[in-house]
Amino acid sequence: MTDKGYKVVFHLGTNDEQVWKSLIKQIGNVQKEVPAIIVEVITHGLGVELLFSNSRFSNVLEEMANRGILFSACRNTLNERGVSSSSDLISVARIIPSALAHLIFRQSEGWSYIKVGI
Amino acid sequence: MTDKGYKVVFHLGTNDEQVWKSLIKQIGNVQKEVPAIIVEVITHGLGVELLFSNSRFSNVLEEMANRGILFSACRNTLNERGVSSSSDLISVARIIPSALAHLIFRQSEGWSYIKVGI
Amino acid sequence: MTDKGYKVVFHLGTNDEQVWKSLIKQIGNVQKEVPAIIVEVITHGLGVELLFSNSRFSNVLEEMANRGILFSACRNTLNERGVSSSSDLISVARIIPSALAHLIFRQSEGWSYIKVGI
Repeated sequence: MTDKGYKVVFHLGTNDEQVWKSLIKQIGNVQKEVPAIIVEVITHGLGVELLFSNSRFSNVLEEMANRGILFSACRNTLNERGVSSSSDLISVARIIPSALAHLIFRQSEGWSYIKVGI
Repeated sequence: MTDKGYKVVFHLGTNDEQVWKSLIKQIGNVQKEVPAIIVEVITHGLGVELLFSNSRFSNVLEEMANRGILFSACRNTLNERGVSSSSDLISVARIIPSALAHLIFRQSEGWSYIKVGI
Repeated sequence: MTDKGYKVVFHLGTNDEQVWKSLIKQIGNVQKEVPAIIVEVITHGLGVELLFSNSRFSNVLEEMANRGILFSACRNTLNERGVSSSSDLISVARIIPSALAHLIFRQSEGWSYIKVGI
C-alpha cells in the first residue's frame, strides 16, 4: 500500500436475503471503525438482484450510496439475464463490464477483498 | 511484499462443523509446508461459535494457539449475540472490534486472504 | 504491483457443477476483458473433482489449458482421497503440494484472489 486510505471490494454472488442484510449491517460496522474507508460492492450472478429496482433494500442502498458506498453490477450477468436497461436497477447502481475483471483490477490497485457469504 | 515472511488471514463466517474440521486440518497442512507462516483465523457471524468455550474443538484450538495460531472473534458479533464476557470464549481467543475491518487492515499490511468454506 | 500484467488465482473447493459451469464461463469473460491475464484455478477438497479424468468438463478444460489457463490440484487432498496417480486427473492438471500454501504464495507475489462459489 502506497496509499494511506483503506479501500475494500465486497464480492457478492448470492441472492440470499440473510446474506444481503448481513452485508448491509457489516458495511455500517466497517464505516464506524474506519470512517474514511472507500467501499465498493461488486455484484454478479444472482448477486446482481440486490441492485434490481424492485429490491426491497433499494431505499437503504440509496441511502448508503449517499454516504459514498459504490454499488456495481456485472454487465455480463445483466446481458445473460436480459436486463438491458439501467432503469431495471436502482438509480445509484453502476454497470461495470465484468465483475471478475473489476475485482482483479481493484486488488491490483491495492484494494482489500472480502468474499461475502457464509 | 517488503516482508520476507508469509502471513495469512482465514475468514470464517460459518458454524458448519465439517468446515471447521477442514480448516483445522488445512492449517496443519499449511504449517507443514511453510513452518514460519503467521496464521490468524478471523471469525464473525456464526463463525464465532468456533471459539465458544463449550466448543468441542476447544482442546485442539488451544493446542494450535500454543503453536502460534491466532484466533480472533468479532466484538460486533459478540455484542449482537449477547456474549459479553471473554469467559464465554476459549482462553486463547482474542476479541477484535470488527472482523471485517481487521481483514481489511491485515490485507493492507500484505497478509494473504483465504475465505474458508466450500 | 510492480508487475504490469494481471494475474489471478481462483480458489475452488466445491464439486457443485453449477459453480463449475459458472467458473468456466467467467474465466472466458475475464479473458475477453483482459486478454493477457494469467489465470490459475487452484482446487482442493471436493473441488479437485473438477480435474478428475472422468469429469464431463475434461474437454473444455483441456481446451482452456491450451489457451493458457493453469489448473492445479492439491496433493494433500489427493492423498486423503487415495488418488495417487496423475492418470486419474485430466492430462493438463498440475499437482501442487498444498492448495492453501499455493494460494498464499501467489497472493504474496501480487496475484489477485477470487473465491469461487455463491
